[in-house]
Amino acid sequence: MLVGKKVPRVDAYDKVIGRTKYTDDLCDKSAYIARILHAEIAHGKVTAIHTAEAEKIPGVVKIFTCFDVEEKHYFPTAGHPWSLDPSHQDVADRLILTEHVRFYGDDIAAVVAENEVAAAQALRAIQVEYEEYPFVMDVQEAMKDDAPQLHEEYPHNILKHTTIRKGNYEEAIQEPGLIKVEGWYDTPTVQHCHIENFICTAEMEGDRIKVVSSTQIPHIVRRVIGQALGMDWGKIRVIKPYIGGGFGNKQDVLYEPLCAWLCWKLGGHLVKLDVPREETFVSNRVRHAIRSHIISWVRPDGTFAARKLEAFSDQGAYASHGHSICAKGVGAFPQLYPCDNVEADAYTIFTNKPVGGAMRGYGIPQAMWAVECHTEEIAAKLKMDPIQFRLKNLMPVGYVDPFSKNEMYYDTFRQCMEKGMAAIDYERKYKEYQNQTGDIRRGIGMAVFWYNTAVWPISLESSSCRMVLNQDGSLQVQLGETEIGQGADTAYAQMTADVLGVPLEAVHVVSCQDTDVTPFGTGAYASRQTYTAGFSIRQTALLLKERILKYAQELTRMAPYNLDIVDGKIIRKTDNRELMTLGELSAAALYSLEHSQHLSAESTYQIKSNAYSFGCTFAEVEVDIPMCKVKLLDIVNVHDAGTLINPALAEAQVHGGMSMGIGYGLSERLLFDPKTGRAFNNNLLDYKISTFMDHPRLKALFVENPEPTSAFGTKALGEPPTCSVAPAIRNAVYQASGVFINDAPVTPHNLFRKLKEEGLL
Amino acid sequence: MLVGKKVPRVDAYDKVIGRTKYTDDLCDKSAYIARILHAEIAHGKVTAIHTAEAEKIPGVVKIFTCFDVEEKHYFPTAGHPWSLDPSHQDVADRLILTEHVRFYGDDIAAVVAENEVAAAQALRAIQVEYEEYPFVMDVQEAMKDDAPQLHEEYPHNILKHTTIRKGNYEEAIQEPGLIKVEGWYDTPTVQHCHIENFICTAEMEGDRIKVVSSTQIPHIVRRVIGQALGMDWGKIRVIKPYIGGGFGNKQDVLYEPLCAWLCWKLGGHLVKLDVPREETFVSNRVRHAIRSHIISWVRPDGTFAARKLEAFSDQGAYASHGHSICAKGVGAFPQLYPCDNVEADAYTIFTNKPVGGAMRGYGIPQAMWAVECHTEEIAAKLKMDPIQFRLKNLMPVGYVDPFSKNEMYYDTFRQCMEKGMAAIDYERKYKEYQNQTGDIRRGIGMAVFWYNTAVWPISLESSSCRMVLNQDGSLQVQLGETEIGQGADTAYAQMTADVLGVPLEAVHVVSCQDTDVTPFGTGAYASRQTYTAGFSIRQTALLLKERILKYAQELTRMAPYNLDIVDGKIIRKTDNRELMTLGELSAAALYSLEHSQHLSAESTYQIKSNAYSFGCTFAEVEVDIPMCKVKLLDIVNVHDAGTLINPALAEAQVHGGMSMGIGYGLSERLLFDPKTGRAFNNNLLDYKISTFMDHPRLKALFVENPEPTSAFGTKALGEPPTCSVAPAIRNAVYQASGVFINDAPVTPHNLFRKLKEEGLL
Repeated sequence: MLVGKKVPRVDAYDKVIGRTKYTDDLCDKSAYIARILHAEIAHGKVTAIHTAEAEKIPGVVKIFTCFDVEEKHYFPTAGHPWSLDPSHQDVADRLILTEHVRFYGDDIAAVVAENEVAAAQALRAIQVEYEEYPFVMDVQEAMKDDAPQLHEEYPHNILKHTTIRKGNYEEAIQEPGLIKVEGWYDTPTVQHCHIENFICTAEMEGDRIKVVSSTQIPHIVRRVIGQALGMDWGKIRVIKPYIGGGFGNKQDVLYEPLCAWLCWKLGGHLVKLDVPREETFVSNRVRHAIRSHIISWVRPDGTFAARKLEAFSDQGAYASHGHSICAKGVGAFPQLYPCDNVEADAYTIFTNKPVGGAMRGYGIPQAMWAVECHTEEIAAKLKMDPIQFRLKNLMPVGYVDPFSKNEMYYDTFRQCMEKGMAAIDYERKYKEYQNQTGDIRRGIGMAVFWYNTAVWPISLESSSCRMVLNQDGSLQVQLGETEIGQGADTAYAQMTADVLGVPLEAVHVVSCQDTDVTPFGTGAYASRQTYTAGFSIRQTALLLKERILKYAQELTRMAPYNLDIVDGKIIRKTDNRELMTLGELSAAALYSLEHSQHLSAESTYQIKSNAYSFGCTFAEVEVDIPMCKVKLLDIVNVHDAGTLINPALAEAQVHGGMSMGIGYGLSERLLFDPKTGRAFNNNLLDYKISTFMDHPRLKALFVENPEPTSAFGTKALGEPPTCSVAPAIRNAVYQASGVFINDAPVTPHNLFRKLKEEGLL
Repeated sequence: MLVGKKVPRVDAYDKVIGRTKYTDDLCDKSAYIARILHAEIAHGKVTAIHTAEAEKIPGVVKIFTCFDVEEKHYFPTAGHPWSLDPSHQDVADRLILTEHVRFYGDDIAAVVAENEVAAAQALRAIQVEYEEYPFVMDVQEAMKDDAPQLHEEYPHNILKHTTIRKGNYEEAIQEPGLIKVEGWYDTPTVQHCHIENFICTAEMEGDRIKVVSSTQIPHIVRRVIGQALGMDWGKIRVIKPYIGGGFGNKQDVLYEPLCAWLCWKLGGHLVKLDVPREETFVSNRVRHAIRSHIISWVRPDGTFAARKLEAFSDQGAYASHGHSICAKGVGAFPQLYPCDNVEADAYTIFTNKPVGGAMRGYGIPQAMWAVECHTEEIAAKLKMDPIQFRLKNLMPVGYVDPFSKNEMYYDTFRQCMEKGMAAIDYERKYKEYQNQTGDIRRGIGMAVFWYNTAVWPISLESSSCRMVLNQDGSLQVQLGETEIGQGADTAYAQMTADVLGVPLEAVHVVSCQDTDVTPFGTGAYASRQTYTAGFSIRQTALLLKERILKYAQELTRMAPYNLDIVDGKIIRKTDNRELMTLGELSAAALYSLEHSQHLSAESTYQIKSNAYSFGCTFAEVEVDIPMCKVKLLDIVNVHDAGTLINPALAEAQVHGGMSMGIGYGLSERLLFDPKTGRAFNNNLLDYKISTFMDHPRLKALFVENPEPTSAFGTKALGEPPTCSVAPAIRNAVYQASGVFINDAPVTPHNLFRKLKEEGLL
């Protein structure tokens, strides 16, 4: 069995030696270079764009402004499966270029030039006139009656408001003796900072447009380009080569429609749109800043009587993934710590800021920040051990979510927490770090999370797979579920090899998706890859195996049920004798003069299940009180992602997610000028992502409880590692410093303010 | 119905505006440039290659010589399907580079450089030492006992000798009163002269080699590279983009193995091998020069008593397609004019000359030159009208070839000839041109041919097809049968649209083959494309339609047998009501939350039939006797290729083939220096292909007798147009001049020699 083994990544060699082809590598040098002119006001209307000077610059091919977008095909950008039900379709509020500027960085014109220098010069030479409107940058301000309105259709800038009601909150809080714990929790605007910025190219083939894009979701991009250009979707072809990360930013349709439109307007000439890092920060997508207000009414014995949550999610200027992120986070609230009386309200609010979209964790890191900061405060107020308080209240074994039907099959939280405690020597340290004095103090803390796998029953989950047998018994595997750096192709190869009965090296996963020939799949998001693709891989491999054994019957006279494929050989079950290699069979089938058959299989599997993934983070910090500086000393993530397909890749996933979580907890925040709405630090010098230099050794541990609904026992692991890191660090900082920092990240500025408030400085 | 309509080529627009991508367009500029060092002796052994000076040239990466080919994996090059029976496999006599030089131009070393200049300089700087052997350039000389031997395993240089025996020739010729007609007929060595020279590139992906090649046969190239490098075939990936013609030269595996080997030896770096025209003439493939000796014993009433044919085919230095070309031509002999007593011998002989391979017509143009020149001579000797003589003796209606089971279903030859005679005003002119005098004389002549379709039962015939439905009801079609400029993709689109019931623009044929994902097909040769692909297209489209209607049942409650697809819409048969568009159905199926299905279909069809294709050429010439100059005044080809899929493309095919036939009849011949074996005129200045300037208006007419074995009634048309042109011109020259020119082409030199011999000059 290869599933469960630490086999090397199938794409490792080429990536290490630099041979792997990314979008830019595939682009011919004859490409025109496109650059976007972004608005330099936060809100208003473009009244004129003067391009005459820019057009004179040698090498400028053409300049397109928002006034050139004649057909207003509003399109959505969220990388969600299409819904046949219009009421469940994503909000279509974008245009190729816009006259109505809704944030500093909105897209108002595009330059196409023969080279990058001319394009950059032209951008600077364009003059824009605006009619400026007032703007708003705070979610709660934006909800007020007199706030500037971003979209007419959404009064009070509320994109959506959803509620959860359980029991009777107002009645429940009347219970005598209850302790009230209340807090406001804020998470920052952060960006994905994948290595490869968004890039795409477009070129026409006949009357069709071929787009090569650094995307997670080629089949969805195809559909959205069709919507944006008002073209039949089949006229669009999208190719996704290897990509340098996505983390959800590339689960949005970013500039593929613009690039395709420019190409189309220029008669089909190859156009390349390579977005610089500065624009990636502002004009791609960001993680929603969410402000949460939680009130818990707790009994002295540490049980909940009633709870209330209000979450205000900063959507920025356009709907993108819309309310689903805030809704997911708020949906986690009553499930993680079940309580009989719950009121929860999720608001997604437009502001004049960069657009919030999908980002690793999809609302759960924000929710876990709020909930796990708040949980720590309850434990502190009750003077209970925070571990014990959690174990008392966390989702119990046998818990079933009525909506998703997800079930807690195992005593997973306890298993994960015990493993983490042991690894970090929690009990000893927790005791030792109580009641410290002095300038340098240490603390230990933790946080838990849950995350679900894929998007059923909210949206469609299906995966198609095709397998093509070669003459040597090797095969190609095609899937719409994309490799985006996470190692999906390697997992697919392991699964295929096991089900079909061939060695790993016999499986060639076709990594590059081409919507013309790749079976339909919605792409990489929602930590769905190994879970959803697993079903179609198993089903398709079994279908191929059935065809192989049926053909083997023609060659061996043995009934298919007496035949099997083991290690690339056809064996007879009765005596385990090797009758022929799969290569011999495949060549015989292909070249037979009696019965020639090219053995292949293709099938769609619709997934009507979902699965809880769980885990926790333990963090140990040292806080320099006078310097307001936090040093992360040790950190452990423990995950139950079911059966691990490849423990080495699983560990790598967790390491990456932990690093992202450390940045979220300690350093990352996109800052805006309140006077103009302009981002201050949209570059990798001023925006501080956590690096290898900032980390202790990252420890990833696993509890492997096989997921019963899963084709290979596996469930979400791509996003979970980011979910509980920041609150764990914050809770460790609390133990060290005695102060609760409720607005992430725990920067020196934040700590200074809080320590001052508490009189500790 | 679209089959039968003159729809525009699906690839026309991009080709006209220059956007179509060929191999060189797809090659990154970072590619190393490979060039081949060819031997400058006709026969011998390389004893030393001095590369030191060449290696010093800046930009030279590495030089590989025949001594660097350590593993001697002999490989075949013929583009034939692999045979599971070793005795039917192609002769494997090539090495990547060879120490044993067998012709002037053999491949002895290769230079890899960073640019073309360095590569060219390095080629010139390499010094080679040889041990020279005697060489032989004439097929009959090569068969003699004391002739130099090219390959040890083939005594007397006979690659193969096959015979046909029917009745008793020796007895039959004893019949009293028989008239003996005997002649020797020679055809020249010619080259295909496709617009795009052979080019390929190779690059590694992981441990696999990706080759992009201007080939007709990507799946076969994959296999042969595997053989040549001693690698599993599945480790090779071959991509065929659009190509600038092939005409059979690219039905050989030319330099893909060398390019792949160089890439492999250089650690997988991208290597480009772009073969110049001069090398294409000599070191690719040529049409076999075949010398035929025919004796016919004819009764005074114009019937045959007995016939004998010996054909000597000049294979050149390596086996390539081997004996199959000569065998095919000789096999035509007893079928075209059936006779009870026949002896035929086909010899394929190695000589120290460029290698003979496949070329449009595959032995039939040579055979028709011999047979139709000879037929004219019989008619002349009998003083019979040549048309009447032919009609008396040609394959009759109901004739069945015992081997191929091909049948003459219709009175096709008469139909074709009558159509041709009418078009060229044959009877009047034939009469008018009898017994001319003066310097300038005119003549009219004709010749017939037959050609079979595809290669069954000699080799495997199977075709696989895949169709993928898009959300808008359009679809992609993938086939291994390649577009090589002949318009195959357009024919496929028409067939698919008709069977599935969609408009033409809904069918996107994936033109580029990629052996990783394209269903297996052997490629473009043997005029098999529309015939063989037609079966798999029909079968796969019906399979897809069945799946679509089954899904339609879920949406409409109507039984599939009460549903149909017409013009891209699902209709109810009972009242012809349009229930939904195919796009609506496809989107509903894909995005259904109840039952999601990506509709596609894939299947293999094995073809166990073959079909006769027939036709004739009529030509009118003016001969300037003192100048020995022939001017072609008028020419008509008439073809029965069954049902025409696209009459406009059919006409274009015939025009191209006629042009090639005119060159064959009047001007083309590759000449060799008898002292060195070097080609004299391996360039497009000295080698005279027929051009637009040399042609009268080319007339193409058709007799459409639907082929009963064919999925769409169609049969061979790709190669037939070249088959009867040259002898028709020669026969017209005979009427004008009174001399029989038996060695093609009818050049002024040839005519001068013959007119001198006959005392006419």
